[in-house]
Amino acid sequence: MNLTILGCHSATPRENKHTTSQLLELKGNLFLIDCGEGTQMQLRKSKIKFARIRHIFISHLHGDHFYGLVGLISTFRLLGRTAPLTVYGPKGIKEIITLQLKLAKSWTDYELHFVELETDQSELIYEDEHCTVRTLPLDHRVYTNGFLFTAQSNQRKINSEAILGLDLQPYHFAQLQEGKDLKLENGTTLSNQALTYPPEPPKQYAFCSDTAYKEDLVQQLEGVDLLYHEATFLDQHKALAAKTKHSTAKQAATIARKAGVKRLLLGHYSNRYSDKNEFIEEAATVFANVFLSEDLKSFSI
Amino acid sequence: MNLTILGCHSATPRENKHTTSQLLELKGNLFLIDCGEGTQMQLRKSKIKFARIRHIFISHLHGDHFYGLVGLISTFRLLGRTAPLTVYGPKGIKEIITLQLKLAKSWTDYELHFVELETDQSELIYEDEHCTVRTLPLDHRVYTNGFLFTAQSNQRKINSEAILGLDLQPYHFAQLQEGKDLKLENGTTLSNQALTYPPEPPKQYAFCSDTAYKEDLVQQLEGVDLLYHEATFLDQHKALAAKTKHSTAKQAATIARKAGVKRLLLGHYSNRYSDKNEFIEEAATVFANVFLSEDLKSFSI
Repeated sequence: MNLTILGCHSATPRENKHTTSQLLELKGNLFLIDCGEGTQMQLRKSKIKFARIRHIFISHLHGDHFYGLVGLISTFRLLGRTAPLTVYGPKGIKEIITLQLKLAKSWTDYELHFVELETDQSELIYEDEHCTVRTLPLDHRVYTNGFLFTAQSNQRKINSEAILGLDLQPYHFAQLQEGKDLKLENGTTLSNQALTYPPEPPKQYAFCSDTAYKEDLVQQLEGVDLLYHEATFLDQHKALAAKTKHSTAKQAATIARKAGVKRLLLGHYSNRYSDKNEFIEEAATVFANVFLSEDLKSFSI
Repeated sequence: MNLTILGCHSATPRENKHTTSQLLELKGNLFLIDCGEGTQMQLRKSKIKFARIRHIFISHLHGDHFYGLVGLISTFRLLGRTAPLTVYGPKGIKEIITLQLKLAKSWTDYELHFVELETDQSELIYEDEHCTVRTLPLDHRVYTNGFLFTAQSNQRKINSEAILGLDLQPYHFAQLQEGKDLKLENGTTLSNQALTYPPEPPKQYAFCSDTAYKEDLVQQLEGVDLLYHEATFLDQHKALAAKTKHSTAKQAATIARKAGVKRLLLGHYSNRYSDKNEFIEEAATVFANVFLSEDLKSFSI
């Protein structure tokens, strides 16, 4: 899993301060998460082949999280896209996009699907043989979801000590990873369990933006490898955070600590703060393993 | 009059290649013309105090001309705008913007007016004591208007030779510019016409994007001081220009020559051409006084 931050600032895009968008590479999938204005320009800067994006997840319908979506959809058409594209987002997103395409007489030449979300219960919205995506209902001024990405490894790990001395062919390794017993040419059968370890535990990335402090996230986020949690404000402005249904760095760190996540990533900073290190310092008093999102920075999971 | 090009490229925005948007300063007004994605970032880069924009003119509903509008409207709100804003554009633009504001629960705190256009006849859409704006119906794949901006000088010009030897006070100059006769302290009255010249002829800027070659523009553009005419293609691709209802540099220059404009400004270049000078070279074979739009370049009129 590899995460690239395309934009991590709140409210209004400025030069070198892009609004929320992230790109998650996960077992061959390229998932786009949120799409603020100018995301397509950030995608070009990232040098990632963004035509490979097939699924876009939009947390909520505030402009700094989706005003770049219609432009990206149009650009895909201009680039001659044929692969289908699915957009997951709050109810209403289909009407917004299709109205604009209709008035521009620029329907897409590729299949464009919408999965509109409206429940406040966590639900499974994407699944393939390697991974799943579930919603994480958040608490914001409009209907908002975070997303939990889980990459499941199906392959057992080969125990290199146990296979020492065995005369194995390449296809034997594949069979062992798939969980099959080993049939040697001399007729012997060796049990898979004796030669392999169980698959690695799933890797998880959770995206939570925008939200007030929400205690019941803790259970859903238990042990995730990387948690992105918005930190629009510092503790000195916690009243403003509560009023606007955003979080402070300290609150994000509290969720991270309670959920026992491995790493915490902060973002969605208000423009009022010039020194982003204050977010780290505040969060680190509660949860040590904390990092700052920066536009075009990547994190390996 | 001063024109700043915010973006002058077609189709999809890229780093350093922004889609159509222009800012026209005209007798105290700041008019925004078209608003491709990322225009608000270009406005910040231009260092112009863009909160002064009160009127936005949108030529048509293709994304590269208006996908930045909703973001700019939202940003005005976040910046605490109170001044009214009027958007002039094709029928449908109000629905697009208000649907997005509604779903984001982010109505503006300032008055936001829409003037929706739907006639294919030129009409007067803005007028104050200093200037007028008329539509220039164009020929494109969707309903499209150009705009003709006319700055009328109401002030007569003082004949510096005729006033030689007169003992004038500052307020006398203002009276003469306003067309009043001069009453000297000794009781003499001198006629205004003997001391002034008529006001300067109006200054005109015409914006024509996007359009196929349209002969009947010639009459409406007669003698304008600066004509921006799209030149998406070079003559070698004139069949493609006709098919997509765009113009070539040669066609833009032909309109300029027939209309006897003073200067021609080209833009809306297709990304297929790496050397923009080919546009100048092609146009100059037909009309000599031709210039290239460049992002963030200004032109005085």
